[in-house]
Amino acid sequence: MKKNKKRKNQVRITFYPEGKTILASMGTTLREVIQKAQTGMNFPCGGRGLCGKCKVKTEGGLSLQTPSEQKHLSSSEGGIRLACQVRIEGDVRVEISPLSLTSFPKILTQGAASKVKVKPDIRKVYLALPSPDLENQIDDLSRIKRELKKEGVDGLSVDLSLIRELARVIREDNFRITVVLGRKKILGIEKGDTRGKNFGIAFDIGTTTVVGVLLDLDTGEEIATHAILNPQVAIGDDVVTRIRFIQPRREGLRVLQSEIIKAINKIVIELTKKGKVKKENVYKATFVGNTVMQHFLLGINPVNLALYPYVPVITDSVKVSASSLGVRINPHGELYIFPNIAAFIGGDTVGVILATSIFEKRDKKIRLAVDIGTNGEIVLSKKGRLVCASTAAGPAFEGARISQGMRAERGAIEKVEFKNGEIKIGVIGGGKARGICGSGLIDISSELLKESIIDSSGYIRPAKDKDIWKERIIKQGKSNCFVLSKKEESERGIPVIITQQDIRELQLAKGAIYAGIDILLEKMGVIRDEVDEVLLAGAFGSYINPDSACSIGLIPSFPRAEIRSVGNAASLGAIMALVSSEAVKKAERISTVVEYVELAASPHFQDKLVEGMELEEN
Amino acid sequence: MKKNKKRKNQVRITFYPEGKTILASMGTTLREVIQKAQTGMNFPCGGRGLCGKCKVKTEGGLSLQTPSEQKHLSSSEGGIRLACQVRIEGDVRVEISPLSLTSFPKILTQGAASKVKVKPDIRKVYLALPSPDLENQIDDLSRIKRELKKEGVDGLSVDLSLIRELARVIREDNFRITVVLGRKKILGIEKGDTRGKNFGIAFDIGTTTVVGVLLDLDTGEEIATHAILNPQVAIGDDVVTRIRFIQPRREGLRVLQSEIIKAINKIVIELTKKGKVKKENVYKATFVGNTVMQHFLLGINPVNLALYPYVPVITDSVKVSASSLGVRINPHGELYIFPNIAAFIGGDTVGVILATSIFEKRDKKIRLAVDIGTNGEIVLSKKGRLVCASTAAGPAFEGARISQGMRAERGAIEKVEFKNGEIKIGVIGGGKARGICGSGLIDISSELLKESIIDSSGYIRPAKDKDIWKERIIKQGKSNCFVLSKKEESERGIPVIITQQDIRELQLAKGAIYAGIDILLEKMGVIRDEVDEVLLAGAFGSYINPDSACSIGLIPSFPRAEIRSVGNAASLGAIMALVSSEAVKKAERISTVVEYVELAASPHFQDKLVEGMELEEN
Repeated sequence: MKKNKKRKNQVRITFYPEGKTILASMGTTLREVIQKAQTGMNFPCGGRGLCGKCKVKTEGGLSLQTPSEQKHLSSSEGGIRLACQVRIEGDVRVEISPLSLTSFPKILTQGAASKVKVKPDIRKVYLALPSPDLENQIDDLSRIKRELKKEGVDGLSVDLSLIRELARVIREDNFRITVVLGRKKILGIEKGDTRGKNFGIAFDIGTTTVVGVLLDLDTGEEIATHAILNPQVAIGDDVVTRIRFIQPRREGLRVLQSEIIKAINKIVIELTKKGKVKKENVYKATFVGNTVMQHFLLGINPVNLALYPYVPVITDSVKVSASSLGVRINPHGELYIFPNIAAFIGGDTVGVILATSIFEKRDKKIRLAVDIGTNGEIVLSKKGRLVCASTAAGPAFEGARISQGMRAERGAIEKVEFKNGEIKIGVIGGGKARGICGSGLIDISSELLKESIIDSSGYIRPAKDKDIWKERIIKQGKSNCFVLSKKEESERGIPVIITQQDIRELQLAKGAIYAGIDILLEKMGVIRDEVDEVLLAGAFGSYINPDSACSIGLIPSFPRAEIRSVGNAASLGAIMALVSSEAVKKAERISTVVEYVELAASPHFQDKLVEGMELEEN
Repeated sequence: MKKNKKRKNQVRITFYPEGKTILASMGTTLREVIQKAQTGMNFPCGGRGLCGKCKVKTEGGLSLQTPSEQKHLSSSEGGIRLACQVRIEGDVRVEISPLSLTSFPKILTQGAASKVKVKPDIRKVYLALPSPDLENQIDDLSRIKRELKKEGVDGLSVDLSLIRELARVIREDNFRITVVLGRKKILGIEKGDTRGKNFGIAFDIGTTTVVGVLLDLDTGEEIATHAILNPQVAIGDDVVTRIRFIQPRREGLRVLQSEIIKAINKIVIELTKKGKVKKENVYKATFVGNTVMQHFLLGINPVNLALYPYVPVITDSVKVSASSLGVRINPHGELYIFPNIAAFIGGDTVGVILATSIFEKRDKKIRLAVDIGTNGEIVLSKKGRLVCASTAAGPAFEGARISQGMRAERGAIEKVEFKNGEIKIGVIGGGKARGICGSGLIDISSELLKESIIDSSGYIRPAKDKDIWKERIIKQGKSNCFVLSKKEESERGIPVIITQQDIRELQLAKGAIYAGIDILLEKMGVIRDEVDEVLLAGAFGSYINPDSACSIGLIPSFPRAEIRSVGNAASLGAIMALVSSEAVKKAERISTVVEYVELAASPHFQDKLVEGMELEEN
């Protein structure tokens, strides 16, 4: 990393654990610095000191606590400050909690403005209609259309449900109205002048997390972000379990659809509250999700996605009115659900490709994008040609199939560091450990490997007498385990233990990513040496420690490649489509040009998988 | 009328009361002759002797009763035969009951085939899809679209509701399907080969009567016709009463809409039963009606149509799915609701103009079309220019505001003839009189005028001693009345009496038609002498005796004009739009070119009205 040269009046801000350093002027708020550093940190109330969510751990020259901080922070929280409140008075060391990063695509939405020209499908026109008399008996709708024509707007259709309200609405403010225009439709006719109130929401429907970002469609400005757990998690952690849930149940599909719609509506309420925006003034929403999530959202039975030969019902994008799905923005508002590519390459991957611009023909570089969520998708691009594959890499990282695995929520061990014979664990929420999440699992694997407690085949060696970790290596049945948090560090006195099987699960995920990448390289006819850039999206962009990931070889080594984290790129894709009709066209094109590679159909897959399970870089 | 020259083996069939004669070969069925004569008579079961509806009164050389006749006719019915069963064996005199004509647009639907090229929007394509495997994982919808493309079909959208059924349907008959194609949409995906099952219904939503005609969309062939009373009649006879009903009631509009939808669904059931057709195979319906009826049908509040300055909410045509209005044909089926022209010139008038072809620019003749239903619409055309007006002419003809007025149903006096000092009345159903309907009122007025019982000002003269009608002219209050049916001829012994006010109501209707025609002629800048053709649609085409109508001058005299009855031309318009996409385009064009003339805004209207109230031709 290039060393920053310090000018007068400037101080150095260092981010931990990454070690990244940037320079800032004295007196600026820590929030400004954090935003400049593109850490992906979220400021739900927009930096007004209202929500108390932007807690950071600090050391160094900082201003005194503000009244807002006194309200939100207990005095016992050593070094914990609100980043939006505190001003810089000297060199500072900052640690951002991964919790305040997960699920929030701030880093990307900031990128969005520079990536797309804000030109949304939705705009508003104000009209003062001439009032009717015996000389002017033209019908209400034609009266509006005639005036719109004068403004250069013609040929738009109008839904019957809107026509039903027409006569009343146009007379409420003496024939003064604002017309909300979509690309092919009139989406609203409102009394009076409502220009300037034109909003949209971009949704990322993850298997585990649902994120919504509220934007001003006129300016492209981001207003608020909100994320909640996908309530379908209660039915099953992964998509296959959910598909199995609906199969024998008449109402199963309806239940799963209504759960996700409820979650969306919860987010709509939160976002409009945060942004002080009326739901009626939200006219558009875009949705990215994996193929199964998008089927559920649309109420389409995805059963064949779980059955050989894994065929989706639809991969085309879908445009429907908000009311038709029960999404409680303006009922006439438009929903755009991204096109899918294949059974396990969904609209979220289209979003990643859109956001990372790796589909452009003029692009001379060979790029690889890896998006790890609950599933793992890999895309390789070369001069506009795109090949992609899906791997079942995700479950290990989200806690599934790991004996004491859990999602990245309160009580999860998210960070592990072995230091001078001590084990330092970072627990989300700061309390006692309840289990381990994906980032913790990668950390511990990396540390176990460094300390030779496991070998590169993943085998946990039995403890030797002189071993400093002797106490922690125990036997369960025929295999060895490692006690990560002892009784006294753990909730209800239950220690968190890493089993041999847990390491194997991680290795399987690693092997799958490795095999996927190798088969795509083969398909494209390039070798690893030729790859110019590796883009890490999803979990990599937020809570996984890249050093640990590299040390166990979770991403194989690319000698010449620059490795870049792009965070929740899928969500950024949804944002781009929301504010730019050009981006929608690109998304459509992407979905038709991407070549899907079915890994299971490759004769080398099993061999590559085993090869890739080796721990350490490969 | 040209005298027909009789050839060998031919016999003469004379129709009463019109006196029209046509020649027919011995051995042909009476039905064939009646159809040739274009009387407008209806054969609900298609001439198979199943329904017993084609009763006619006959005299002359006819074959013996068939078993079917024995089943449907009581032996006592002298001369009554089923027209579809009986064969001609000599000269025959036939009287067709007006009841079997009213509301049935047979005469016109026969005309339709010659008027339009059958090329409907809806067609079917059979596909045997390749089944999916790991080499062919394309999604279900794309699989269909790819095969359609091979058939030259591309770019059609598909509703979400259809996509939801897709996966199941295409697997039910091993990927063999039939796709139902609309103009812009896929309307259905059905298992197996369902070609040849492609039907549509044309609806005429009258204020009083709702008529549906079931057609085979592939051939344009008419399969069945059914008419019922508009159930909204229970709420109010005329449109203004119905609008007043909804105003103070929250649920008023919904009630009126659901009444009409129920009626439509009743007709769908009857037609599909008669035609042995599945409702699911009915993919399209077209609707003509006056502007208020069409607003009700669509659930649009028409309150401003009854308030100055009488503005409709919409005049554009509307295309919606059957399910969105609850019309129980195929739920994905398309409904086309005709465009309106103005508040009181609706889709029915567009239908009349379409069916009579009076809008063609190449047409050199000046034509006048008068459609009398519950309202009266008048259209004047000259070289593609069209002017039209609406008059409140109808109520008198449908019984409203007439003291003993009633609709043309059982017990209504529909025909009156004075003969040798006797009064012959025709009662619908053949029983005792309950009241009088429009055709009867015109007949009696004509006879009273001929007998000088009323003068041309409409005044009923007091009875003179030597008067042969002395007994029948009685005094009620200050004015005179005429006893049409005596106690003994009347149901429950209540005589049917024509009051001075009844005559005045008829005169007002006549005056309104007169004034409307005159103002339109003025607007177009032509005089009556220049009019080449007068087309009588609606009631005129079916149950009003044209001789009586002319003798009281209900239609003013046009010295040069040919007068032609075109029956239910509105319904024919709906049929044309159903079987021909070209006709739909024409309907759209008609609605935009017609110039509406607001009679109330004309300074001459009152004078013309009074002038036109004079009885006798003017």
